[in-house]
Amino acid sequence: MLRTLTSASVALGPRVAGWVRTMASHQLLVTPPEALLKPLSVPSRLLLGPGPSNLAPRVLAAGGLQMIGHMHKEMFQIMDEIKQGIQYVFQTRNRLTLAISGSGHCALEAALFNLLEPGDSFLVGVNGIWGQRAAEIGERIGARTHSMIKDPGGHYTKQEVEEGLAQHKPVLLFLTQGESSSGVLQPLDGYGELCHRNKIYTRKTKPYSFYLDMKWLANFWGCDDKPRMYHHTTPVISLFSLRESLALIAEEGLENSWRRHREVTAYLHGRLQGLGLQLFVKDPALRLPTVTTIAVPAGYDWRDIVKYLIDHFSIEITGGLGPSLGKVLRIGLLGYNATRENVDRVIEALQEALQHCPRNKL
Amino acid sequence: MLRTLTSASVALGPRVAGWVRTMASHQLLVTPPEALLKPLSVPSRLLLGPGPSNLAPRVLAAGGLQMIGHMHKEMFQIMDEIKQGIQYVFQTRNRLTLAISGSGHCALEAALFNLLEPGDSFLVGVNGIWGQRAAEIGERIGARTHSMIKDPGGHYTKQEVEEGLAQHKPVLLFLTQGESSSGVLQPLDGYGELCHRNKIYTRKTKPYSFYLDMKWLANFWGCDDKPRMYHHTTPVISLFSLRESLALIAEEGLENSWRRHREVTAYLHGRLQGLGLQLFVKDPALRLPTVTTIAVPAGYDWRDIVKYLIDHFSIEITGGLGPSLGKVLRIGLLGYNATRENVDRVIEALQEALQHCPRNKL
Repeated sequence: MLRTLTSASVALGPRVAGWVRTMASHQLLVTPPEALLKPLSVPSRLLLGPGPSNLAPRVLAAGGLQMIGHMHKEMFQIMDEIKQGIQYVFQTRNRLTLAISGSGHCALEAALFNLLEPGDSFLVGVNGIWGQRAAEIGERIGARTHSMIKDPGGHYTKQEVEEGLAQHKPVLLFLTQGESSSGVLQPLDGYGELCHRNKIYTRKTKPYSFYLDMKWLANFWGCDDKPRMYHHTTPVISLFSLRESLALIAEEGLENSWRRHREVTAYLHGRLQGLGLQLFVKDPALRLPTVTTIAVPAGYDWRDIVKYLIDHFSIEITGGLGPSLGKVLRIGLLGYNATRENVDRVIEALQEALQHCPRNKL
Repeated sequence: MLRTLTSASVALGPRVAGWVRTMASHQLLVTPPEALLKPLSVPSRLLLGPGPSNLAPRVLAAGGLQMIGHMHKEMFQIMDEIKQGIQYVFQTRNRLTLAISGSGHCALEAALFNLLEPGDSFLVGVNGIWGQRAAEIGERIGARTHSMIKDPGGHYTKQEVEEGLAQHKPVLLFLTQGESSSGVLQPLDGYGELCHRNKIYTRKTKPYSFYLDMKWLANFWGCDDKPRMYHHTTPVISLFSLRESLALIAEEGLENSWRRHREVTAYLHGRLQGLGLQLFVKDPALRLPTVTTIAVPAGYDWRDIVKYLIDHFSIEITGGLGPSLGKVLRIGLLGYNATRENVDRVIEALQEALQHCPRNKL
């Protein structure tokens, strides 16, 4: 765990010399922080935002297991199982399947760092925060980034995408399938035929990032025919938890999991409409089966409602993000949290919030 | 946890369309993997390599706690405590103190991405794998990277560094304080005066990485005067564990922790010499107080010894890494594992290995 701190000394530069001097003279400049001498306290919350969500007991248990080496044969076995689990969840037989040692943003950067070179044409659908972020990363890489901008809640038709491809002839097309900031499910059926290229092994320059270089990662994850070489120290215990998350999906079955999410979210939509609330995405076919966006009800400040739920019910729901900020409330029913019981809990809480939060404040 | 997978759909490109088609037709291409239908099995190991090492029970317990939101006020409090803990461990009052959501390599990239721009002069001491990696990242960024190359086990004198600075006038100097691949402790006393610049807020271009952009990270970690803005979804549970790791150091006291590592490692050195083994770093002042390198004893294959220990004692020690591969065996006594009992265990195991492993094989 403390590995992460290693390189802070690089960033802090001259401070290191100070530390070494201190070590020599045995006189501490900074005393032990009071706050760290108290026990860790973590509240119990029902997380019904767009993520993170609560973890199943089996995933929690994996998080409490003791460490093993990142290159032990048992770890490579667990990584192989993770690869198979991802292939199952994404329904792919692509050999280049792996997990990234970082957050979703990091995985997004990994994809763009490896697929784009400076000067490449990059076409991005920007209808929410994820498209915004992809465009920003493309610009940092030095790609010629072309944004197709829509208001939050918008999506792209196949004709619009075809026109963009014809005009900009991009190396890479970026569309957000699950735009969690606006609740939109982007249709992608038939888009595969529009895109044919595997860029990673034909690029002329190395990606800027060594940490996220897909050739190194592919080798370390056993996706090529060469012996595995040390690349970076993977987050061993997080990989235990990821393995267990994937095992839960394998046990439930993907179709059952999809059906559960669709049914529970449909139940939520009915209950929300029963409260007189309006769904932000009008066309039911374009609504995400995981994150639901609700138009902020007239006269209310969205912050009051979010605060009421967390203060009185210890339930998290959230407002918008990026372009959808101030326009929506968001409720996520994800994985372990996608149950009718949780819908009943959040509806009861919302009902009380609508009665008690000030109206006509705005 | 499954967030990490989000962007795999970006990397896999056309596969997504296949997935969506499958979803529509309810016919799965890939069936649930057999291996994931079996329980997770993790062996019990004493990890005496250069890291990872075993975790204290309190750190393990934190890893099993339930999730909270990455922007809940309790999480910001925990992040503030982590900052204070890092400031204590590094003996700094630098406000720009934070943890990176990734491995040590990721933190190294964060430092270099933020401190270097294309065309900048970058001076690197390469006396082991970490200098090699820093030079490689500098080259990827497009910095004019000047390597001062030494054999593994070497270190840099202040005069050598001053000459390098005069010749190359670098924006950034990189030296590895704890070269864990060779076991060398680089003296840094007085080097702070050679370096005076804070580059981050004066650079002309944006760093290539958004995920590791220090201005965004500094804001999200509350290191500036602006309200915290969403940047990326931090690894909440890993931060619980990091908080507990730092709390253990605060409770023990930094001086006591330093003393424990020095004393236990000195005890190891004595016991190793008692077995007739040679330490790889000749000058005691240049030996790391955490990771010890042993010259591979004449006639043995280092792989046999490492394998014997893990097969017969479930103890991990490792060979070299990068330039030190084949030259050394490495034993780490880090944090929770830095005890005399563990030294006794590894010495007993080594003694038996030296008796049973084939000699004169090479």
